[in-house]
Amino acid sequence: MTTDRLSIYLTETRTWFEACIPSIFQSAEITPKLKQAMLYSLQAGGKRIRPILLFATLHLLNKDKMIGLSTALGLEMIHTYSLIHDDLPAMDDDDLRRGKPTNHVIFGEGTAVLAGDALLTAAFEVIAKDPHLDTQTKSKVLGMLAEAAGPEGMVGGQEDDLEAEGHTLQLDDLISIHRRKTGKLIRFSVEVGAVLANATELQTESLIRYSEHIGLAFQIGDDILDIIGDEEKIGKPVGSDLTNNKSTYVSLLGMDGAKEKLEQQVSAAIASLREIGLEDSLLAEFATYLLHRTH
Amino acid sequence: MTTDRLSIYLTETRTWFEACIPSIFQSAEITPKLKQAMLYSLQAGGKRIRPILLFATLHLLNKDKMIGLSTALGLEMIHTYSLIHDDLPAMDDDDLRRGKPTNHVIFGEGTAVLAGDALLTAAFEVIAKDPHLDTQTKSKVLGMLAEAAGPEGMVGGQEDDLEAEGHTLQLDDLISIHRRKTGKLIRFSVEVGAVLANATELQTESLIRYSEHIGLAFQIGDDILDIIGDEEKIGKPVGSDLTNNKSTYVSLLGMDGAKEKLEQQVSAAIASLREIGLEDSLLAEFATYLLHRTH
Repeated sequence: MTTDRLSIYLTETRTWFEACIPSIFQSAEITPKLKQAMLYSLQAGGKRIRPILLFATLHLLNKDKMIGLSTALGLEMIHTYSLIHDDLPAMDDDDLRRGKPTNHVIFGEGTAVLAGDALLTAAFEVIAKDPHLDTQTKSKVLGMLAEAAGPEGMVGGQEDDLEAEGHTLQLDDLISIHRRKTGKLIRFSVEVGAVLANATELQTESLIRYSEHIGLAFQIGDDILDIIGDEEKIGKPVGSDLTNNKSTYVSLLGMDGAKEKLEQQVSAAIASLREIGLEDSLLAEFATYLLHRTH
Repeated sequence: MTTDRLSIYLTETRTWFEACIPSIFQSAEITPKLKQAMLYSLQAGGKRIRPILLFATLHLLNKDKMIGLSTALGLEMIHTYSLIHDDLPAMDDDDLRRGKPTNHVIFGEGTAVLAGDALLTAAFEVIAKDPHLDTQTKSKVLGMLAEAAGPEGMVGGQEDDLEAEGHTLQLDDLISIHRRKTGKLIRFSVEVGAVLANATELQTESLIRYSEHIGLAFQIGDDILDIIGDEEKIGKPVGSDLTNNKSTYVSLLGMDGAKEKLEQQVSAAIASLREIGLEDSLLAEFATYLLHRTH
């Protein structure tokens, strides 16, 4: 259930953003199979949540989305590389992602490792060479992105997730893993919008709190959908977390407990926006949408 | 055979640089096994050729090595990540590197993938957050590094190398692979020194030519050592390229032809330095050292 306004915004922004993806490779001379492997996963669809959060943040701060384009592309390239490496046999060993064969199934494991490495590296290049950003902003954005995606952020969460396999986690450990594995990049998406828009300190702090609640809500929603979702819509077998013996919000809190925690996070996210008078914004509608999403 | 001056410089610089490595992790909160895996490969020794080329370039342009420290650390982190991923079973499947078990042998494949990803990401963070560099220099250095290491550079060369397995290459193809797989990062090591030192255009162009000859000389030397080297000194079985059916300069040109090509590259490297009056510098001695190295 999305409002018309949000639904139009999501579709329009996703379509525009996806049309911008090939521009990354415009002047680059890349060996054909590697380029194909990079594009295969970059263009495999997905909700483009992170770029959309960045553009929506710029929108509500009255800034043009062009100033966020290279950052959004870099962000999506890093998200995409993390999925390619996460799906590898040595990691989650998934053959299917968004209803399509995963990168290593199509291109082989070696090329999948390299396509991930290439996307990660090129993400920083796209931002470092953006002619629309001044050098001070670029350095700040690049440092923030590397911190969010690196060993203190996403990669650290992935390592802890890997080590947790087959163990039952405490709720705090699960939250700590997700705060880094998926939360840091979602937080970055919103925080960098505030940085690019020169938001006030108060706006930035409230937006960061919003993004942290949204990140958690998103993960809880994923866990719920893994149990009650429509296999075709989510693009992977329902119940795969159960089969893999993974601790999830549903396994730790029960279905009702997980739904309650999801609602709390969405309410808290909207409350953070209310502090800066943005409770009627697209970001607020986006939070509500997370309560009702079906994929 | 190294001169006393060069030998002292190599040892002193390597020792100082290696003492700086732990500073990368000073303020970082990283999950223990991931940090251990990152440090294991970063501290596994090696000649530190790339940082030394950077520091030697700064030295001959009369600049303090401190202005190159974060870049040298980032450079070595990227070189190290590429070795970790290159050694994976899905890539070269090597169990031994520099006489020690490779990263995935010790930490498992999943963690080795992530340790590589973490080093690559953190490389950009270290440079982006360096308080000694102005933001204009940082943006330039980050863009150059990503280009050298990414799909147009190192990763592209690795992909072509992967695809070439089991095929006999033409000399031009072999040179094209090495120019990207190892050459681009070696070129970056010298070129970035020129950028950090505000070298003149003439100096920069000559230094770039030097670095391209050195990169090729280094690779030809590796291929020669693979046949005639001392197993203990080079840290891997002699003849492994032959066993893996890889095209090398020796297999394509014969041993005498490869040695002749090595000498040509070293002479051309020194000639490039002569153009800017640096034929007596450490960089020139370093080129000569490549003719006679034993590991």
